[in-house]
Amino acid sequence: MTLGNRKKNAVKAATAAKVDALLVTHLPDVRYVSGFTGSNAALVLTGNRAVLFTDGRYTAQAKAEAAGTRVVIEKKPAVTAACEWIERAGIQRCGFDAAHTTVAALEAMRKAVTSKVRRSLFHPVGALVAALREVKDADEISRMRVAAALGCSLFDQMLSIIEPGMTEIAVAAELEHQARLAGAEGMSFDTIVASGERSALPHGHATTAKLPRQGFVTLDFGVILDGYCSDMTRTVHMGNALPGEHEAYDAVLEAQEAAVAVVAPGVTAGDVDEAARSVLRRAKLDRFFTHSTGHGVGLEIHEGPRLAAKQTQPLAEGMVITIEPGIYIPGRFGLRIEDMVLVTATGGEVLTPSPKAWIQL
Amino acid sequence: MTLGNRKKNAVKAATAAKVDALLVTHLPDVRYVSGFTGSNAALVLTGNRAVLFTDGRYTAQAKAEAAGTRVVIEKKPAVTAACEWIERAGIQRCGFDAAHTTVAALEAMRKAVTSKVRRSLFHPVGALVAALREVKDADEISRMRVAAALGCSLFDQMLSIIEPGMTEIAVAAELEHQARLAGAEGMSFDTIVASGERSALPHGHATTAKLPRQGFVTLDFGVILDGYCSDMTRTVHMGNALPGEHEAYDAVLEAQEAAVAVVAPGVTAGDVDEAARSVLRRAKLDRFFTHSTGHGVGLEIHEGPRLAAKQTQPLAEGMVITIEPGIYIPGRFGLRIEDMVLVTATGGEVLTPSPKAWIQL
Repeated sequence: MTLGNRKKNAVKAATAAKVDALLVTHLPDVRYVSGFTGSNAALVLTGNRAVLFTDGRYTAQAKAEAAGTRVVIEKKPAVTAACEWIERAGIQRCGFDAAHTTVAALEAMRKAVTSKVRRSLFHPVGALVAALREVKDADEISRMRVAAALGCSLFDQMLSIIEPGMTEIAVAAELEHQARLAGAEGMSFDTIVASGERSALPHGHATTAKLPRQGFVTLDFGVILDGYCSDMTRTVHMGNALPGEHEAYDAVLEAQEAAVAVVAPGVTAGDVDEAARSVLRRAKLDRFFTHSTGHGVGLEIHEGPRLAAKQTQPLAEGMVITIEPGIYIPGRFGLRIEDMVLVTATGGEVLTPSPKAWIQL
Repeated sequence: MTLGNRKKNAVKAATAAKVDALLVTHLPDVRYVSGFTGSNAALVLTGNRAVLFTDGRYTAQAKAEAAGTRVVIEKKPAVTAACEWIERAGIQRCGFDAAHTTVAALEAMRKAVTSKVRRSLFHPVGALVAALREVKDADEISRMRVAAALGCSLFDQMLSIIEPGMTEIAVAAELEHQARLAGAEGMSFDTIVASGERSALPHGHATTAKLPRQGFVTLDFGVILDGYCSDMTRTVHMGNALPGEHEAYDAVLEAQEAAVAVVAPGVTAGDVDEAARSVLRRAKLDRFFTHSTGHGVGLEIHEGPRLAAKQTQPLAEGMVITIEPGIYIPGRFGLRIEDMVLVTATGGEVLTPSPKAWIQL
């Protein structure tokens, strides 16, 4: 059973980090390990036990979703109840995720236990569950395929409605509406529709600006489907290319395809970044490529690994990453092309096969 | 100038907390104090200086939005750059918000400065800016009026399209689409459409369930407009009431109106909660009212104050709060009625005046 494996792997990671138990409070981690999707939860894992703490709003939901995990309904904060349980269970060293626990939360955890163990019980152990989540299992991959495919179908739909004079926000509204009608729980992030000069803003959220008669339109969007995020970017052109635009597009496309081509287990995240960056360097456009090449994606839109210069983390089979080089020339134009790529046993499989050749509308 | 006042108030709060400077990293706080809306920022406030650190993606945007604040563009993480600046500036005691700073982030802050000041420089001071944000200024109140009014107009539109057999998700999709077309940047939270037996789920996000011929439909939704969140809930009924439903509706409505009626500066958050809860207690329905009565709202959907039992915090003029009692009877039905209320000099002004009387569709 999948959840059983995830728990076992989390416990194994905790043991390697020299703690007897793991307190999991980051909600995507709780969901990953236990299946529970509620907004208030603390999960404790020990060598042979898994206990989920939540409140009365979630009695029925927690029992249904977190089958195989003991559920405790509490009026007090879930973390407080979890810490009290941890002390009662005689745990000596409990790990917590320092990247997802605030200084105030740690203080509250310490206040929840007696002075006898207050200074000795809790130990930062890094983002152990988030690290496990980087490699997707079969169930996750099949969900992510469906989410990515929905993204592609939405892009296709947009091609038939985009026209000069339409506002960016109307494009985003239509895209999001179609996503919802297709069953998406929501969007992975604020939809980016950046047109004309605004295409030079890497994070140009849709505004009331009107699509130009001539110029790029970048669409960067993702859906959340069955808990999992999709993420893709395409840049189309309205009317004929202005000087330099076609060359820039070709360079970004070549960079993107070069990075996709090197994806394979064992290749480092930095190698993938360099594959894209070196193409743009040869085209003398690398100074306009002002961000990293990509990131892992899954239950959250930004997960590990981080595909940036000098990152030594090797890719592993089952990772799902984005590859999204772009260039942004202030006051002129910008463009970006992004796919989701599954790392397979032998290479990379693009999960977002929408056309990437120059599209003129 | 508004931003000037916000900075002054933040510095005053820092001084009262016995620190010479404040490091602000929670993005809604950065936006509130400086105006900057980018996704990567650290802001340092001292007695007479305000310095905003961000990266090259935001050069133009930061200078435009954060007028009156010095902007520093950095390749290194914004927080690292800020900490280095703080040490160079000779600050002795710098406050940080323990509720929005992770244990890992504090460790990184300490690593960014030299060993000489590593253990002495940073001091947790609580959520000082978040506390300031509880009381809205004139500019914020006028934006929140517009956001709340958009919410009301969306509810009106929904009344003309809701019918039995429509899926919850189709209702949410239409509502969100109209919100977008009206200029909303997004929704404040995942839209809740909970129909029939699902209305007994306080947090029933829209699903593919179909609206029944007979039963409640709860709509709880909010838009983000010009940065500010709206939040409102109405529960309508499809077909004739089943036994107990009309009585339950009347009790929740009476509880909601009783709580609205007591809102005034100086009244405690707990008093407002008790005003609602005591009505439901008299109706012997209080055991089904399983959450608190409301919360502050503004740049974030959940802000202080928290309107729950025994909360001693007094309301103050300029706060914008929600009042949202509800009851949830598992396996039968649930309902909730929620308004946004502005605390005025003499009482409370409902910002979401959509009808609250029983609506049968």
